[in-house]
Amino acid sequence: MADPENGNPLSRGLVCPTPLSAEERVLLAHGGGGRLTHELIERLFLPAFRNDLLSRRHDGAVFDLGGSRLAITTDSYVVQPLFFPGGDIGTLAVNGTVNDLAMCGARPLYLSAGFILEEGLPLQLLEQIVISMRRAADLAGVTIVTGDTKVVDRGKGDGIFINTTGIGLLEHSLVIAPDRLLPGDQILINGDLGRHGIAIMASREGLNLETVIESDCAALNGVVGDLIRAGIEIHCLRDLTRGGLASALVELAEAAHRHLEIDESGIAVREDVQGACEILGLDPLHLANEGRFLVVVPANDAPRTLDLLRRTPTGTTAAIIGHVAESGPSRVTLKTRLGTTRIVEMLSGEQLPRIC
Amino acid sequence: MADPENGNPLSRGLVCPTPLSAEERVLLAHGGGGRLTHELIERLFLPAFRNDLLSRRHDGAVFDLGGSRLAITTDSYVVQPLFFPGGDIGTLAVNGTVNDLAMCGARPLYLSAGFILEEGLPLQLLEQIVISMRRAADLAGVTIVTGDTKVVDRGKGDGIFINTTGIGLLEHSLVIAPDRLLPGDQILINGDLGRHGIAIMASREGLNLETVIESDCAALNGVVGDLIRAGIEIHCLRDLTRGGLASALVELAEAAHRHLEIDESGIAVREDVQGACEILGLDPLHLANEGRFLVVVPANDAPRTLDLLRRTPTGTTAAIIGHVAESGPSRVTLKTRLGTTRIVEMLSGEQLPRIC
Repeated sequence: MADPENGNPLSRGLVCPTPLSAEERVLLAHGGGGRLTHELIERLFLPAFRNDLLSRRHDGAVFDLGGSRLAITTDSYVVQPLFFPGGDIGTLAVNGTVNDLAMCGARPLYLSAGFILEEGLPLQLLEQIVISMRRAADLAGVTIVTGDTKVVDRGKGDGIFINTTGIGLLEHSLVIAPDRLLPGDQILINGDLGRHGIAIMASREGLNLETVIESDCAALNGVVGDLIRAGIEIHCLRDLTRGGLASALVELAEAAHRHLEIDESGIAVREDVQGACEILGLDPLHLANEGRFLVVVPANDAPRTLDLLRRTPTGTTAAIIGHVAESGPSRVTLKTRLGTTRIVEMLSGEQLPRIC
Repeated sequence: MADPENGNPLSRGLVCPTPLSAEERVLLAHGGGGRLTHELIERLFLPAFRNDLLSRRHDGAVFDLGGSRLAITTDSYVVQPLFFPGGDIGTLAVNGTVNDLAMCGARPLYLSAGFILEEGLPLQLLEQIVISMRRAADLAGVTIVTGDTKVVDRGKGDGIFINTTGIGLLEHSLVIAPDRLLPGDQILINGDLGRHGIAIMASREGLNLETVIESDCAALNGVVGDLIRAGIEIHCLRDLTRGGLASALVELAEAAHRHLEIDESGIAVREDVQGACEILGLDPLHLANEGRFLVVVPANDAPRTLDLLRRTPTGTTAAIIGHVAESGPSRVTLKTRLGTTRIVEMLSGEQLPRIC
């Protein structure tokens, strides 16, 4: 194929600015949503795919088409185990992508579903997962309109991987993006942290906890729609999946070039989740959630926002957890319950592989 | 999660009409694009996801949004080997999805890219694939606007799987669908068959053929755009990927409820491809292609269509290969070069797993 315009990828800046060595290999932590995931994007994907939409680094891309403002987002789901308290890979594959659209401020409309099946997967199990997807789609008000199925040889997959890609419509004039953050903005969270991470971890490791901790997996488009319809001036939204609250805050601070000050006392963690974290040596700030998000709003909109978040069935522990500082470095500081202050970091290694 | 409306999946018709037994398992042939893939869709996916858009059974879904007509399509790519003569998994992941949009009559605009990486994959290899994707996207005139990366443990994947989902715009009033087929319509193909299938098979099996057969992998949106702009009254388009020409024709006949009569003498197969088929015991009609498609047009548009197909660099062997019969059962008959007639069937087993 002739390709005269493309020439040497190096000369076009397609390859990464810090060259990759032949020894560097993909690690589990590259998929963990922490520092290595971030580096892989910065060093490899962004230079190669470089374009204006991608550079905005949101949960999805927002673009104009025929007079409408649309959003598109994609996620592959590789969670293990496939079934866990509170959901399964099918529920997750619908809600996760619905939520990424919601975080763009879009009303989710249509999903595609791409299946990679491992030879030998029982068809009844596939059917259960597919029915979960339909139910989650009905609850979120989206339609699965197109799909694809591939099969890989036994031992070359892991039961089932699902990709969902979603399209949504922006029906307002808000610009929801990290660079909208202003000093004094309040940062809110819609409830307690860490149930998805612990649900997966406990079922994977066969932990015998006193209570069964269910994933918080849920669609967030309803509550985001409530905020938009109430006229809240949303500056940014971010869901707290892989990498948890810590990664979301650090990414936000870096993308916005703002200093964020967080107060630990506002962050709710259920006692059973806290207990499991202590047993497992995990930090709730790094735990994955599938029904939790941050919303950043001007201070005068914060009380109404909090009220709307608390009205949702799982939002009784919603809280204002911090604010955008007047000045300071592009990082996140946490005032702990003990009154000390520490810098919040993205997870650099691997805490919970294959959490979604 | 309360879900009062959904109730029993059986009562809502979400489960398949012919119940799945506990013994039934996913086979490689379920991903082969032949009879078993077809059955999996009919028995499992369609009943569960049931909706108007999905039921049209096209390569993608076409819907109206804010006054525009859009198409969405998804495909996961699991090809082995990752690099082959004429392309790699990255080229394929872009062109395959671009082509599915083109088959809906859409101008491809944006792609998402979801990566499932196996722990241990060399980063330089990933970089090569990602650069191939960018080049293929530039050639096809599409932009990769959003992405996702997951990592699975060593031995739970196979180097790299890629999902791409595409959005395109329909800029004409044609309705391109199997049910538009009319008696007397002519069926054309844009060139010779089987090079992708043989390229993969030969490199996978380490076959030492006299010539290196390169995949025909290419974007088809250019030539489809030419046909649309020329005012050709396109009734249907279908690309000849998994399952090859045979599956495409049989699916078309079944979906259109029409009898298709094909003349083998019109179908071009290069001598080296024919030779490889004989060595390997393969039927060129079942071989996968990644740059070939069928177009069905009214008889009076056929000469102009043929002319436009032949003007493309790889279209010199484009031909009229058959027509829609006045009546007869919903199947495909082939007049062979020997003058006999046979029924064309979808592949029922597995010919070439993981061809795309």
